[in-house]
Amino acid sequence: MLLTRREFIELAAAAPAIGFWDAGMPGAYGQTVRSGPIQIDARRLQSDLEALSLVGRPPGGSYADGVSRIGYSDTDIDGRRLVSGWMRDAGLTVRIDAAGNIVGRREGTNPTALPILFGSHIDSVPNGGNFDGALGTLAAIEAVRTLERRGLSTVHPLEVVVWVNEEGVAFGNGLCGSRAAVGELVEGELGHVWNGMTNADAIRRIGGDPDRISEARRAPGSIHAYLELHIEQGGTLDRDGVPIGVVEGIVAIDRYDAVIRGVPNHAGTTPMPDRHDALVAAARLVLAVREIVTAEPGRQVGTVGKLTVTPNAPNVVPGLVQHTIELRDLSSARIAALADRINARAAEIAERTGTTIDITRTSHHEPALANPAVQSIIERAAADLGLRSARLPSGAGHDAQMAARLGPMGMIFVPSVDGVSHSPKELTRWDDCANGASVLLNAVLAIDRTALAA
Amino acid sequence: MLLTRREFIELAAAAPAIGFWDAGMPGAYGQTVRSGPIQIDARRLQSDLEALSLVGRPPGGSYADGVSRIGYSDTDIDGRRLVSGWMRDAGLTVRIDAAGNIVGRREGTNPTALPILFGSHIDSVPNGGNFDGALGTLAAIEAVRTLERRGLSTVHPLEVVVWVNEEGVAFGNGLCGSRAAVGELVEGELGHVWNGMTNADAIRRIGGDPDRISEARRAPGSIHAYLELHIEQGGTLDRDGVPIGVVEGIVAIDRYDAVIRGVPNHAGTTPMPDRHDALVAAARLVLAVREIVTAEPGRQVGTVGKLTVTPNAPNVVPGLVQHTIELRDLSSARIAALADRINARAAEIAERTGTTIDITRTSHHEPALANPAVQSIIERAAADLGLRSARLPSGAGHDAQMAARLGPMGMIFVPSVDGVSHSPKELTRWDDCANGASVLLNAVLAIDRTALAA
Repeated sequence: MLLTRREFIELAAAAPAIGFWDAGMPGAYGQTVRSGPIQIDARRLQSDLEALSLVGRPPGGSYADGVSRIGYSDTDIDGRRLVSGWMRDAGLTVRIDAAGNIVGRREGTNPTALPILFGSHIDSVPNGGNFDGALGTLAAIEAVRTLERRGLSTVHPLEVVVWVNEEGVAFGNGLCGSRAAVGELVEGELGHVWNGMTNADAIRRIGGDPDRISEARRAPGSIHAYLELHIEQGGTLDRDGVPIGVVEGIVAIDRYDAVIRGVPNHAGTTPMPDRHDALVAAARLVLAVREIVTAEPGRQVGTVGKLTVTPNAPNVVPGLVQHTIELRDLSSARIAALADRINARAAEIAERTGTTIDITRTSHHEPALANPAVQSIIERAAADLGLRSARLPSGAGHDAQMAARLGPMGMIFVPSVDGVSHSPKELTRWDDCANGASVLLNAVLAIDRTALAA
Repeated sequence: MLLTRREFIELAAAAPAIGFWDAGMPGAYGQTVRSGPIQIDARRLQSDLEALSLVGRPPGGSYADGVSRIGYSDTDIDGRRLVSGWMRDAGLTVRIDAAGNIVGRREGTNPTALPILFGSHIDSVPNGGNFDGALGTLAAIEAVRTLERRGLSTVHPLEVVVWVNEEGVAFGNGLCGSRAAVGELVEGELGHVWNGMTNADAIRRIGGDPDRISEARRAPGSIHAYLELHIEQGGTLDRDGVPIGVVEGIVAIDRYDAVIRGVPNHAGTTPMPDRHDALVAAARLVLAVREIVTAEPGRQVGTVGKLTVTPNAPNVVPGLVQHTIELRDLSSARIAALADRINARAAEIAERTGTTIDITRTSHHEPALANPAVQSIIERAAADLGLRSARLPSGAGHDAQMAARLGPMGMIFVPSVDGVSHSPKELTRWDDCANGASVLLNAVLAIDRTALAA
């Protein structure tokens, strides 16, 4: 980056006392220099997070009561309106793509350079927290605002993105916006109905155009890089006192539906040996999932999060249970092996309980590895800001796993207190929020001046 | 019973070839005789069962698709209207008591004699069968019709009763009509809300008067006896090929609510050892209930029939599970001992899974023993009709367990094919229906001429 003398003086004056000058900086203006780290405005970021937290807050609640801002819902639309305004105020040219993603663009100095894409999402799970997605989105906007305040330009265009329906509470399948960006939001999916509304109509009500969904697609290689700041959602960074996580990759996630059919019968008159109790079989399967997943060392996880009983009456032996099984690991092969073991155990349980158990895979997400050079840049940005960092995988799925197909991807994690997430108790300290946003901004600037191998 | 010559001839002419004359019959008219067994009209009973099965049948369904005739619902009201008409056609004087029970009275020859009460219910569980309750109700009406046809009178008044909301699908607590008859439908309960309606309003809409609920109460000792024909709902009689069951008593039923609190958390980022998964704890408890109940010989049963997960999302570790536990046995002491063991195991599970488990008893029904003399009368009535019988306990709760507090109680069971009940597949063969109804009629007549000890 070439600084004018004036720019150089401004930059130096605005810089914090610690960590501004890095070792490689020649210290002379008018030459090619590596700029020192910049801090975002921590109070402004906090203020934006607090403002957005009002949208979807339970009536009469406080910040600690979390939010319900389900994708495509009225509160999601309110939040999108608020955030779009902030994006325009930050000087971004805002458009809604065909999938409903909000994209705010800031041109670079080289008109032919590929854009650097960064952002996150603002939708939440029901009774979710105020940081999951919101932090990465608002930090991206604050990063652009900081560049504007300082009059800093980049070679590459910058594009701040707010992805649609990351959580997938609506329509049961997440990463909707980023899947559309890689052409994976298929046409059949647009006809899915949730709460009496098709996915196509849901996209229309947020300003997208489902008839032109293919126009939301970006070609592989069409971005210079993708960056996303996100709360860890696990407890590793918080427990170890490390403020910045450098994500190595995002785990593969497979979901399955288990359907267990027994025989519904009168709970008073059916002797215990004669029962075909679907819930007893399901209980064995729930425990089997946990046992199989924990039988070997590693970071793999397995969860039965959703379960329904039919007819679900105190005096009827359950005839039908349906439940999800979700498996996550950085290795798809390991997930497949776990699924094989679960299927084998399900067959034993069905035999033993006089039920039938059918397990079908309903979704599959490949793991996505972060670009090694981007990981190093994030690490360096943290170090320049005087922040310790640690590498770790992401157990949660993120839009970044889709964006990784478009170009080099990197993710920055900040600590979640006690690792709590998807809960009103989700908390990331304001200092950590600000640190993450500053690392994001400086990583964007470093990536801007780095040629990355795809 | 004194027969006129004309009555005697009519009776003999109408009697079936087999089993009419019992050994003790002197064979001369104008003397004190024990009448021989009478058969009800099997085709008429079948026709009534088929007609009632239309009320609450799924649209486009057949007899095999069962019924949904939940207490106080529109279909329940339609069924009550149909059945009331049949009762009046059978010569009964019909009234609705304050609880909404339908009572049809036929006077006896002795104006001061206590009434013989018999009947059942016509409400069903959702997707229930066509015999549970309906058979006992329509058999009682057909029994009266048979007496009318034959011009037979009784010493005691007869009262056919159709109890309200036996199943307790509405308001979650059954035996509503018979509990009102013994003064156990408490005032507080009338304020309970179900589907946006109070129990008081539900009683009003079927013609009862909740403000005078105490008037539905009958004093202990105010009836000569209570009889109820019902399908077994278990598989014992069907498996053993025995057409008539003589019920020894109705088991005690205790219900409990288990509330299991863990920590809701992100399913991808929460390592397996750090989880406080309420569903894993619940799975252990579901299996513990079965294990503890089956650990010793006996006919006790234990069921977890209703279970809900919160927040119930595939990607959230369950934070809360609530489920019922129901225990049944002829001995209340045995149930209490089982509950103690379940509570102790729950404490171990909570400790092991990092959750809290609270189990509270939500209802308790004492066992009700059938009157020994009435059991003998039913046995004899079956034998006179050439039908084998067996004694057995009732695992299901019945209005009879409340009526037993008013006077000597007896129940007649007929086989349920494969023991299936509370299901559209519930089936009792027409011959068995007719046999049960004939045993009911002849038992009523025998009780009419017997002094019973309370």
